[in-house]
Amino acid sequence: MARWRPGTRERLQEAALELFATRGFEQTTATEIAEAAGVTERTFYRHFSDKREVLFDGQEVLLEAFLGGVRRCPADASPVDLVAGALQGVASFFSDERRPWSRARQAVIDANPALQERELSKLATIGGLLTAALRDRGIPDPAATLAAGTAVMVFGATFGRWLDPAESRPFDQIAHALLDELGALVTRPAPLTRP
Amino acid sequence: MARWRPGTRERLQEAALELFATRGFEQTTATEIAEAAGVTERTFYRHFSDKREVLFDGQEVLLEAFLGGVRRCPADASPVDLVAGALQGVASFFSDERRPWSRARQAVIDANPALQERELSKLATIGGLLTAALRDRGIPDPAATLAAGTAVMVFGATFGRWLDPAESRPFDQIAHALLDELGALVTRPAPLTRP
Repeated sequence: MARWRPGTRERLQEAALELFATRGFEQTTATEIAEAAGVTERTFYRHFSDKREVLFDGQEVLLEAFLGGVRRCPADASPVDLVAGALQGVASFFSDERRPWSRARQAVIDANPALQERELSKLATIGGLLTAALRDRGIPDPAATLAAGTAVMVFGATFGRWLDPAESRPFDQIAHALLDELGALVTRPAPLTRP
Repeated sequence: MARWRPGTRERLQEAALELFATRGFEQTTATEIAEAAGVTERTFYRHFSDKREVLFDGQEVLLEAFLGGVRRCPADASPVDLVAGALQGVASFFSDERRPWSRARQAVIDANPALQERELSKLATIGGLLTAALRDRGIPDPAATLAAGTAVMVFGATFGRWLDPAESRPFDQIAHALLDELGALVTRPAPLTRP
């Protein structure tokens, strides 16, 4: 597995992912992760509150990436521009360097229903906070709810595509292609005035 | 609480919801629900595998409502028509008679993170099966993923609105208004050719 950042914390994450993948998430203990990373159990707990946090410690950074993307939009940005801005912000989080880690992490999550529920819950939380951020910018409801829901939905579709072994485009390129496709898809074509 | 269907099963559901609302979900037992409904514990378990199922027994019917709405669309229906069809199908599930039950149920779920995760997981399952149904109809990817994601997202926004005490429009009217609004929202306006 490629190392995407150096340091003890990252060594713990790599060791954990390796163990989760080979033994299963439930069957792996924090002690074993610490041992495999060559550190004490106490060091493990200095970095993570529990073994699940090894997989979800990026949640705050991901949320901040969504919100930062919205903040960088001009004051008069339309809802779709804010959705695009949010996705652009998130793209900085999912760099190509992170891809091997994200793929391995996803395989662990796919094998464990409780982790899948945690992941869905994380996205729902982000969606709620994004809705609030859009309302704070003066986007009224239901546009704020729909725009935040669209950002999270397109994020999910992008993420799934980005993880695909056959996919090599960077995250932002996939996200913008999908947002454009969605725009074409949800618009009923106006009746033609000429044949 | 309004009764939306007669019978033992429904009496159990009403009694359960009442107890969940007053004592909390965790603090209520199946025995207590049976007692409050005037039936034996054994009768409770003939209807529900556990107390959580009292809140989630509609999942199969809801899924079938989504898929039935898709099936009723003409063979050449566009993705957005299929999304509208799915939402129309779901509207039959969320009748006005069901509204008081749904509102009370949501209050119980809002108070319990584990039930929220269960609800999110239910929607994710429906989204996955809807994507598969759209692919089966010949909608290619990523359109199938985006259309199913849109149906589930607009469903969520509609459901939230429909539950609002200040909202009296029927489900299908809200759903179609939101789908139209989404269409307007995600389309970047074409540059004007005239001032």
